[in-house]
Amino acid sequence: MRIDIITIFPEMIEGFFNHSILKRAQNKGLAEIHLHNLRDWTTDKHRRVDDYPFGGSAGMVMKIEPVDRCITSLKAEREYDDVVFMTPDGEQFNQSMANTMSLAGNLIFLCGHFKGIDYRIREHFITKEISIGDYVLTGGELAAAVVADSIIRIIPGVISDEQSALSDSFQDNLLAPPVYTRPANYNGWEVPEVLLSGHEARIRDWELQQAIERTKALRPDLLDD
Amino acid sequence: MRIDIITIFPEMIEGFFNHSILKRAQNKGLAEIHLHNLRDWTTDKHRRVDDYPFGGSAGMVMKIEPVDRCITSLKAEREYDDVVFMTPDGEQFNQSMANTMSLAGNLIFLCGHFKGIDYRIREHFITKEISIGDYVLTGGELAAAVVADSIIRIIPGVISDEQSALSDSFQDNLLAPPVYTRPANYNGWEVPEVLLSGHEARIRDWELQQAIERTKALRPDLLDD
Repeated sequence: MRIDIITIFPEMIEGFFNHSILKRAQNKGLAEIHLHNLRDWTTDKHRRVDDYPFGGSAGMVMKIEPVDRCITSLKAEREYDDVVFMTPDGEQFNQSMANTMSLAGNLIFLCGHFKGIDYRIREHFITKEISIGDYVLTGGELAAAVVADSIIRIIPGVISDEQSALSDSFQDNLLAPPVYTRPANYNGWEVPEVLLSGHEARIRDWELQQAIERTKALRPDLLDD
Repeated sequence: MRIDIITIFPEMIEGFFNHSILKRAQNKGLAEIHLHNLRDWTTDKHRRVDDYPFGGSAGMVMKIEPVDRCITSLKAEREYDDVVFMTPDGEQFNQSMANTMSLAGNLIFLCGHFKGIDYRIREHFITKEISIGDYVLTGGELAAAVVADSIIRIIPGVISDEQSALSDSFQDNLLAPPVYTRPANYNGWEVPEVLLSGHEARIRDWELQQAIERTKALRPDLLDD
């Protein structure tokens, strides 16, 4: 999978892609992340990427031209499955969307800033609008990193067996059960006895019951699907 | 506001806090972000922060001791409003929670990794569990950055008037209306005429209608509240 991220602040997120599992995925050749500085696609000497909105409302708006130039240049080199815009009014991102998107070959992520992007970009270039949640961020960079992280980690081979994604929350519409590690007693706080029993079947049963109970208590909506 | 972030990968997100509006908030003295490397709070020579789970399930679990030491040391220096854990089974983060949290004085964010953290940490140290959405990430770092970004940007004085947060999506339970900037005609794609009319009242009315229509079409659930 290749992801091209178009942003006016590449340095905000480049550290993120150079560490941990995202870095390992790139080293293994399972994912490529390319950050593009939108200012490199301006043609004026001030490298201007924004301008005042028509209609006089507050805030600045990202201009069409540099975005058009950058996307057009990328598309000339390869086919893209989607040109994705991160926006709070987009489709709600969830694990099932992550699973689907992890099958894509090439994706472009456009990160918005300021008060928004010229709406014509959304009408003519964007094929998928995604929201990572009902809150507003200073820009789309973190949202792009969130989506990239969640889809890359489930590409087969990226995480090792012992980090298996199969027992993650949401993969089976259940929240994960509680986990514990040594020491068995810390400050008098003890690990549930069944986990120390060595009785495999009882342990798996306890984990499933805990997962169901936690889901019923915290997220009953997940059980409706 | 002061936010202390406890993580095993500080370098994943430090670039993020050194740029854009988050950097400006710190320069203005309106926010302080302190990243703490959890490994600095281990006492063994391998600086071990994880261990195998009791019960033999897959994955590694973050240990209690270093987390206890780090949180206890921070609490000895100041009062904290909340010790927050980022987890997909936490309370769903949204704009109204961001508004409330932006009033806090001091916050600790603990970022999980591997298969999870020892559940006793959640029972005894954590006072608030937050999920930024129904998807799984490689760690809590991005989630911590998302929450920090969304709450810091709405602290009065952080963003300038022209970036005013008041007309953001969600602040009035409406999605934002479309925005446009120059040129008025690009490739034959034209800006809605009303925005070029100079007729202030008609423009504000059009924006409100667009916001309502977009909300009805894309997120009717927001209008139920």
